[in-house]
Amino acid sequence: MGGDFAPLHEIQGALMAYKAFNNSNTPVEFIFVGREAVIRDILNKQNLDIGFRYSIVSAEEVITMEDEAAISIRTKKNSSLICGIQLHKSGGADAFISAGNTGAVMTAATLILGRIKGVSRPVIGSFFPTMKDKPTLVLDVGANAECKPKFLYEFAIMGSIYLREITGLKSPKIGLLNVGEERTKGNTLALDAYHLLEQNPKLNFIGNVEGRDILAGSSDVVICDGFTGNIVLKFAESIITMLKSKIQSHASKSIINKIAVAVMVPTLRKILKKFDYQEYCGVPLLGVNVVVIIGHGKSSPLAIK
Amino acid sequence: MGGDFAPLHEIQGALMAYKAFNNSNTPVEFIFVGREAVIRDILNKQNLDIGFRYSIVSAEEVITMEDEAAISIRTKKNSSLICGIQLHKSGGADAFISAGNTGAVMTAATLILGRIKGVSRPVIGSFFPTMKDKPTLVLDVGANAECKPKFLYEFAIMGSIYLREITGLKSPKIGLLNVGEERTKGNTLALDAYHLLEQNPKLNFIGNVEGRDILAGSSDVVICDGFTGNIVLKFAESIITMLKSKIQSHASKSIINKIAVAVMVPTLRKILKKFDYQEYCGVPLLGVNVVVIIGHGKSSPLAIK
Repeated sequence: MGGDFAPLHEIQGALMAYKAFNNSNTPVEFIFVGREAVIRDILNKQNLDIGFRYSIVSAEEVITMEDEAAISIRTKKNSSLICGIQLHKSGGADAFISAGNTGAVMTAATLILGRIKGVSRPVIGSFFPTMKDKPTLVLDVGANAECKPKFLYEFAIMGSIYLREITGLKSPKIGLLNVGEERTKGNTLALDAYHLLEQNPKLNFIGNVEGRDILAGSSDVVICDGFTGNIVLKFAESIITMLKSKIQSHASKSIINKIAVAVMVPTLRKILKKFDYQEYCGVPLLGVNVVVIIGHGKSSPLAIK
Repeated sequence: MGGDFAPLHEIQGALMAYKAFNNSNTPVEFIFVGREAVIRDILNKQNLDIGFRYSIVSAEEVITMEDEAAISIRTKKNSSLICGIQLHKSGGADAFISAGNTGAVMTAATLILGRIKGVSRPVIGSFFPTMKDKPTLVLDVGANAECKPKFLYEFAIMGSIYLREITGLKSPKIGLLNVGEERTKGNTLALDAYHLLEQNPKLNFIGNVEGRDILAGSSDVVICDGFTGNIVLKFAESIITMLKSKIQSHASKSIINKIAVAVMVPTLRKILKKFDYQEYCGVPLLGVNVVVIIGHGKSSPLAIK
């Protein structure tokens, strides 16, 4: 219920996923946790003839994007978020997926479901488009504003394993986000994390990468503290908005501009599709001892799928 | 000599500036510090009939973008950078302008020229384009990878005074770059800096701003540590490169795409002009006790002017 288009996109995405799983002969069942009436209403408008297997678990409260994570998980025990995670814990579901309040999902998952042994802090990654044909996984993008070098080292291990298992990349290249390529560059956190990273021969650590290397796709994984990562992610997400605003302002200046923009937009839209963070799927909360996927609040049905 | 197009853009920019100063009846004189033969060669190709007042100070060495700041300022004493700053110190010039190695300019200026009393660390700002009609000044973008709360507080004061004096804004709005708007958000550095900033009634401190607020132009000045600022700046600078790469790749896919892109590009170029960091002028190294302006390595003649 927490996503910006919930539960519509969630239901549409689940239907898309159901078809894909069915085609690959992997039986799968969806459990929608949330306001039953709203969910039924949307389901009634979908084509369920494909034999869609689902159930609904009623949870009438909603943790919103504005809710403070630590408070809401205590006060909204009957929210879709908490009920869904509890369902996962009790074994009633094998995975939990949400496009809701990231902080609340993270806090609830960590407190209710617990961490993997050896992991200091769970971490949230985000895929960034690149100039190459594959995106870069940046983590942490906001789970831990304050990090110790050891956390960054663990992020690298978790990101590496995740990309290997999901994309099949044998040995994902790991870069440490820093202000220069040389190993002597950066703040104490980056310097100490570098030292830890280079000592593990199982990690394909390529050294420091800079801000420009994220979009250049210089490494498969980019490691940073959650403060830096969150600011870069939100900056990146605002680029499309900025561009739209500048295009509109240009179009409004004259009839000729308006025509030129109208001619330009369809092509530009195709090119910019890969820049649109709504198109990217969710990423797991790495480090919790279960399967929790967090999507962008604006996740499209495709992203949910 | 240190800029990517030096000394051509520097000379062309100086000529443009000379005309502008002359038109406003402010006599001004330029001193080119660098490889004399190269400078003379370029000057000979310019139209100097406007009565251009200049002199040349010979300095044969060049500190490159790849040179390590602390080392190069010790080993390249006869570089244009060091000779120019020494000239400024001796009173032979009233200001020093460079599009060269930022770290080297900063280190040399701080060591040779000294800091303003009360300033812990000099700081480098950079203008970012915004959705509004004025850019945002982000500082620090790389002078200090490791910051104390007090440094950020001083950056706010310096940025505020600078914008007030240069743009005429009476009370520039200052935002603290953070992972959330609430005062309880962020790492220890941001939390402590917030506390210092809110206590000064002379500062128009509007609280925390997020990554997306830079391009939104929510504040006139954005304060952050030099690690975060540098990564965001380099990320931002890479957007145009990324976009160009995606456009080229789209055009290469078919003749129809190629035509669509050819039709689109002139309009897009006009719209993106404001995104191009080469178009932005240099900013002063704030906190040193003299006038030192640092421009982007790719500074156009207009930026130099």
